[in-house]
Amino acid sequence: MSERPFHSRKPRFQRPSGKPGRRDHQPRRTFGDPDLVILYGWHPVAEALRNGKRTLRRLLATENSARRLSEELGMPLSIEPEIVRPDEINRLVEADAVHQGLYLEADPLPSPTPDTLSGKRVVLALDQITDPHNVGAIVRTAAAFGVEAIITTARHSPAATGVLAKSASGGLEHVPFMIVRNLADTLIALGERGFQRIGLDSSGESRLDEMSLRQPVVLVLGSEGKGLRQRTRECCDAIGRLDMPGAIKSLNVSNAAAISLFAVTKAVSADVKG
Amino acid sequence: MSERPFHSRKPRFQRPSGKPGRRDHQPRRTFGDPDLVILYGWHPVAEALRNGKRTLRRLLATENSARRLSEELGMPLSIEPEIVRPDEINRLVEADAVHQGLYLEADPLPSPTPDTLSGKRVVLALDQITDPHNVGAIVRTAAAFGVEAIITTARHSPAATGVLAKSASGGLEHVPFMIVRNLADTLIALGERGFQRIGLDSSGESRLDEMSLRQPVVLVLGSEGKGLRQRTRECCDAIGRLDMPGAIKSLNVSNAAAISLFAVTKAVSADVKG
Repeated sequence: MSERPFHSRKPRFQRPSGKPGRRDHQPRRTFGDPDLVILYGWHPVAEALRNGKRTLRRLLATENSARRLSEELGMPLSIEPEIVRPDEINRLVEADAVHQGLYLEADPLPSPTPDTLSGKRVVLALDQITDPHNVGAIVRTAAAFGVEAIITTARHSPAATGVLAKSASGGLEHVPFMIVRNLADTLIALGERGFQRIGLDSSGESRLDEMSLRQPVVLVLGSEGKGLRQRTRECCDAIGRLDMPGAIKSLNVSNAAAISLFAVTKAVSADVKG
Repeated sequence: MSERPFHSRKPRFQRPSGKPGRRDHQPRRTFGDPDLVILYGWHPVAEALRNGKRTLRRLLATENSARRLSEELGMPLSIEPEIVRPDEINRLVEADAVHQGLYLEADPLPSPTPDTLSGKRVVLALDQITDPHNVGAIVRTAAAFGVEAIITTARHSPAATGVLAKSASGGLEHVPFMIVRNLADTLIALGERGFQRIGLDSSGESRLDEMSLRQPVVLVLGSEGKGLRQRTRECCDAIGRLDMPGAIKSLNVSNAAAISLFAVTKAVSADVKG
């Protein structure tokens, strides 16, 4: 087994640059507990409470936010909030994080493995995409496209918590992460289970939106600068490209992910219909 | 004429929140000169120098960045850089801006009008999308899709400078902005010139990727929370939607823009071929 389950992963929370005046803003609780997922801000916290799939540890909320939560969720909260001042949340999150008076500590969602993936919906694999804002934006879009799971590498990927969760705007509740030590091994395992493995790269031999695709399928995206690693490409059945008619040839990785998911979802549903 | 030319627009640079310790980081030069475009960071500055369409006022560069610019552009710089320390650029840009040792002051690019648009490429209109990061990401993607121009409203839109230019990653050099006082009037004028006006909204009557589209076409996008304003919708010939099969129904606006541009560009090119 090449998978390294989510909960055994070392925390990779980036330490702030250490300017003395900002030390108070350092997130304190994220070190030392790799099992802990930090969610803050309206959408991530509300969606986690609605979701009901997470084991919740503690919820901090300002008085206003706690009231708004109860009102908008329209059900009793599954965890009693500790009412705090905004400052107390400031101290727990990244500097300048927009927490909107809500802070939740929870367990990670259960991780699938290649054996437990149904393949009934598209699976997305990210090859060392490092920026948590970008990965968060991808998670949100993946949730909108009903992606079954997102495969990321244990190294060179941001943790599914904090900034990533905030950028995902609640999407993290709907797309489980599958953290693997070696993406190539995982793609091989998925190939053995019948998954069609489609990489995205500007040097691809066909246009992604003109490829004939079928389920189960895993779409593999590389980072903005480097694209797919050589070994990752070798483990794909085909490489597709997006043709850009304009002056700038490269897309932001979350926009490339959105267009690719659109094209692949459409191709796969055409296959199902046809 | 409903257009308000770019250069007559008031600067709408957001003032920082005024924490005493950060006042030094306030951008100083952007107030009081609405004709001034600030570009910083590698891609925006390098692309503006490559572009050659802007009137350049002054270029500040660290010694390393100036050397790298000359090397990578492979041509003499069209403006002599003033060599400065990074601190001097820090003082001119937003706090925490990643300027990579490059800062350029320039004139805005010439703005098209409804009469000068060729309509040979897709035109994009943004209905009060306020976040400069989102608009910047849209500009980058629009440049990749060869969009002819981006129409924005004079109010409730970020200026095509600073943060927006940085997020656009050079894309701003390839897609002129057309700033209008009244978007509805402009859509009416474009309709009179034969433009098909297609809005995007979740309540749209048809799937955007199944609509039959032809050039010239203007694609109209609303903001994430509010969507298209009523009056904007009324000035569209048709409203398309993107169907999201997943649990989260709303996309980040730049991802929605990317998918829509993909669908519209494809539909229009199918029309040209067919």
